[in-house]
Amino acid sequence: MKDIEIIAFDADDTLWSNEPFFQEIERKFADLLSIYKDTKEISAELFKTEMNNLECYGYGAKGFTLSMIETALRISNHKVSAEIINEILSLGKSLLNMPIELLPGVEETLRTLKQSNRHRLIVATKGDLLDQQRKLQRSGLASYFDYVEIMSDKTEKEYAKLINTLQVPPEKFMMIGNSLKSDIQPVLAIGGYAVHVPFEVMWQHEVVENFEHPRLRKVKRMGEIVSSD
Amino acid sequence: MKDIEIIAFDADDTLWSNEPFFQEIERKFADLLSIYKDTKEISAELFKTEMNNLECYGYGAKGFTLSMIETALRISNHKVSAEIINEILSLGKSLLNMPIELLPGVEETLRTLKQSNRHRLIVATKGDLLDQQRKLQRSGLASYFDYVEIMSDKTEKEYAKLINTLQVPPEKFMMIGNSLKSDIQPVLAIGGYAVHVPFEVMWQHEVVENFEHPRLRKVKRMGEIVSSD
Repeated sequence: MKDIEIIAFDADDTLWSNEPFFQEIERKFADLLSIYKDTKEISAELFKTEMNNLECYGYGAKGFTLSMIETALRISNHKVSAEIINEILSLGKSLLNMPIELLPGVEETLRTLKQSNRHRLIVATKGDLLDQQRKLQRSGLASYFDYVEIMSDKTEKEYAKLINTLQVPPEKFMMIGNSLKSDIQPVLAIGGYAVHVPFEVMWQHEVVENFEHPRLRKVKRMGEIVSSD
Repeated sequence: MKDIEIIAFDADDTLWSNEPFFQEIERKFADLLSIYKDTKEISAELFKTEMNNLECYGYGAKGFTLSMIETALRISNHKVSAEIINEILSLGKSLLNMPIELLPGVEETLRTLKQSNRHRLIVATKGDLLDQQRKLQRSGLASYFDYVEIMSDKTEKEYAKLINTLQVPPEKFMMIGNSLKSDIQPVLAIGGYAVHVPFEVMWQHEVVENFEHPRLRKVKRMGEIVSSD
């Protein structure tokens, strides 16, 4: 790791827990509409709406809230009450103010890396711009990072633009994250290094098959990154 | 202008027309709810909701849509129909797919500046991340720019971060835009240069008193930037 100039961290479900909170909101949403459909079907309908809206809304809590409202209208045949729409708006706002719980070993790892002074640490995350910035502020971790990039998507093209902005060659760039699809595959594809730190749950949109790669390291917990370096 | 290394352009109402389209959507929104209140009052209520939500939603079309829905619920005393909520969702989506009409002289100015090869041209805009990126793509102007920064807000702090990322001192940075509040004041405050190009209408949140400054140039039309250089 000594030749790595920039270590980039994914945020949601890498630095702090995120998906469980989204899933809790989704359960509450399904409960609100359970007079219309089975809660499993409601979740499937919501996922369908989210995928249809991805090109137009992108990732993040605001698009998710709009997709919940659209789904509520559709599965109720436009019968859903204003009260329930109001509840959905509140669920959306609670997502934007979700409590930030750091994952085990995160702060110690960042502190060790920061103190070693051998790498620039950055955040590279996708989602709503302001929401991700506010979550980083609330996390108390902002001071560990030299730079924060909020990306509209985590594709090869976006990562290539990022390392161009940072003026670093791919072989000196390492990405750490929980999603093989968003944090690992595109970074390896452009010639960078990656560390996969799995999280307990995964949004179905992010699921891909497991794989190995010479520039990919797999750890079980964040703390391993510095313990064996 | 010859010592300027980076020329940054605001996007909405500087490169293309934006506010008139938002105002048209707001008129349609007010018409939808005119059974509950006078349309002027509806606009005032919507503005109040937007301001209350600014810290949590930030700028952009998705937050605007969520604020329209919240306003509809409030002014109807939670009586608004699912049909009207559905119409509001559609109005929001039309904002995300709004036609991009370039303002007069924009493309010629960018072409002249690009050909002169004396400055790096960038976009510095606020709003929803993906939406602003997509508007730039649709505008056909993307190839003129070396870098695009979507900011959650246009404050001194955000501009200071931007020029730090770009590794340029403030006296070599010039911002061109229509909003004295967002594009001009903060840039002058950190020591940069600015050009004000007024637009026909202004969102009331952006209105500030007119002023003069030694590093501020005022033009009537975009084309003047290159014609007298």
